Amino acid sequence: MTTRSRQSVPGTTVGIDMGGTMIRGGLVGPDGSLRDVVRRPLPDGPGARHAAMLDLARDLGQGATAVGVAVAGVVDDGRLLLSANVGLGDIDLRSALVESTGLPSEVINDAQAAALAEVHGSSARGLVLVVAVGTGIGGAVVLDGKLVRGRGFAGEIGHVVVHRGGLPCGCGAAGCWEGLASGESLRRAAERVLPGPDRTVDRLVAAADSGEPGAVGALMEAAEAFADGLNGMCAVLAPHRIVLGGGVFARGGLVADVYRSQAATRRWVRGAEITMASRGDHAGLLGAGLAARDLVAGPPTGVLATL
Amino acid sequence: MTTRSRQSVPGTTVGIDMGGTMIRGGLVGPDGSLRDVVRRPLPDGPGARHAAMLDLARDLGQGATAVGVAVAGVVDDGRLLLSANVGLGDIDLRSALVESTGLPSEVINDAQAAALAEVHGSSARGLVLVVAVGTGIGGAVVLDGKLVRGRGFAGEIGHVVVHRGGLPCGCGAAGCWEGLASGESLRRAAERVLPGPDRTVDRLVAAADSGEPGAVGALMEAAEAFADGLNGMCAVLAPHRIVLGGGVFARGGLVADVYRSQAATRRWVRGAEITMASRGDHAGLLGAGLAARDLVAGPPTGVLATL
Repeated sequence: MTTRSRQSVPGTTVGIDMGGTMIRGGLVGPDGSLRDVVRRPLPDGPGARHAAMLDLARDLGQGATAVGVAVAGVVDDGRLLLSANVGLGDIDLRSALVESTGLPSEVINDAQAAALAEVHGSSARGLVLVVAVGTGIGGAVVLDGKLVRGRGFAGEIGHVVVHRGGLPCGCGAAGCWEGLASGESLRRAAERVLPGPDRTVDRLVAAADSGEPGAVGALMEAAEAFADGLNGMCAVLAPHRIVLGGGVFARGGLVADVYRSQAATRRWVRGAEITMASRGDHAGLLGAGLAARDLVAGPPTGVLATL
Repeated sequence: MTTRSRQSVPGTTVGIDMGGTMIRGGLVGPDGSLRDVVRRPLPDGPGARHAAMLDLARDLGQGATAVGVAVAGVVDDGRLLLSANVGLGDIDLRSALVESTGLPSEVINDAQAAALAEVHGSSARGLVLVVAVGTGIGGAVVLDGKLVRGRGFAGEIGHVVVHRGGLPCGCGAAGCWEGLASGESLRRAAERVLPGPDRTVDRLVAAADSGEPGAVGALMEAAEAFADGLNGMCAVLAPHRIVLGGGVFARGGLVADVYRSQAATRRWVRGAEITMASRGDHAGLLGAGLAARDLVAGPPTGVLATL
């Protein structure tokens, strides 16, 4: 434990984002401002990763009233059930954080955290669907500025079944949305349709841009699957706004354009305002800090995390 | 307009349910009790139906502070956009109700209304997904006792795409949930797999019950599609509770059992409490009356309808 002491600003929380290669942390002010942001490489092995997270939480926690951690994985009531990319195993992260820092602590899925960050500061009330298309597809539903959490793991939107009987998914189902429309599915499409050794998504996009039929077809197939999944979610929720983020949209260009224009053709999507995510790399830690604030000031049910 | 006058009980609202064959109406008390319930056959033609609804609203409205109407159709901000079964065309129902009764009025989808009714009086906070499997599939999301309405038409859950590229749907998409798992899809399955002239769902169920392979296969196919759709919705929302209703579940027996047991095998469904709808035929009018109460006492955003 560090001995450095900080002035604690009331309402300031710790936000930590456990990504696939990096741990990011910082202090989130009552106004949503960030300070003392640090990035540390993720060490090898579950034990070292666990310890690195607790060290950072303790260190930053001296200037804060609560701790929030975002993890790329399935989080259920503070417990990390599945984190293929972070490799932390099935552990009760929240209890470990509380014990280590002495502060109220919250653990949420990284896509939920990013969603909170994207909606923070927005004046619009109403229902916002945040969709992050990266290696997988994550996201969350934010209602009147609050995260809709259900039993805790809500936001696993990549596992909406859009093509039953289709590609088997690690979640146990088949034909999940992220298997058909994620960055990883584009990578697989590149391997399938491109010649030669360098079969990347960049080359797939370049080939599609130059009109190569196989590449155009693969891209359209992914974009249509994306649109169909989004359409279904909009039929259920009729969001006022859809925020599109994640690596696939951050790269911009043809893929983002085709995804977005396909989605806009769908009946239940039409009428929703579509905006692009704008918080960048800090979305996860900002959202984690915002979720933690709820522990101190928020409603007692745990269903919603107040912005 | 009738001249009969009634004692108005504070907090009492009118609930009206415009079904495919019947108009039901009644007064909904502050405690959710029903009185003065009437059933009238739906007259022929949009004009007569419109007039019958307004007459009933005016009549009952004399004892009430607000009016709620539930319609089997797509409702967006008080406007009925599509009502294939009720046949009212594209009209601004809410404005007509306000003008006719002089009372604050609300128009919601019948499945949303039924969902409000099913959750009313339940002490459980949290997220409830109500699914009604009848001719089509409808339903709604209820959060901490409030209807999640989005832009207004939310709850068109039958139009979640579960088999992209599959059966074309009237909504413009293909492979919608209700095309694969609704009562109507069972009826089509009966026509497909049964011999002879009397190819009803009852006979399909009887044939499946006696082990006839084609009938068993058709029933399992529908049940698996039902489970896949429900699984996807649970991945997004992680509801604490799922309420299953509508004709397919109300008939009970083999179909309800197979649907429910298939759903329970799915990853994101597991952990949710599953209960059966219990409000019967009055769910629509009760929910409409509950939604109307929100106009008088509820939050100003219109996003939520308070129970």
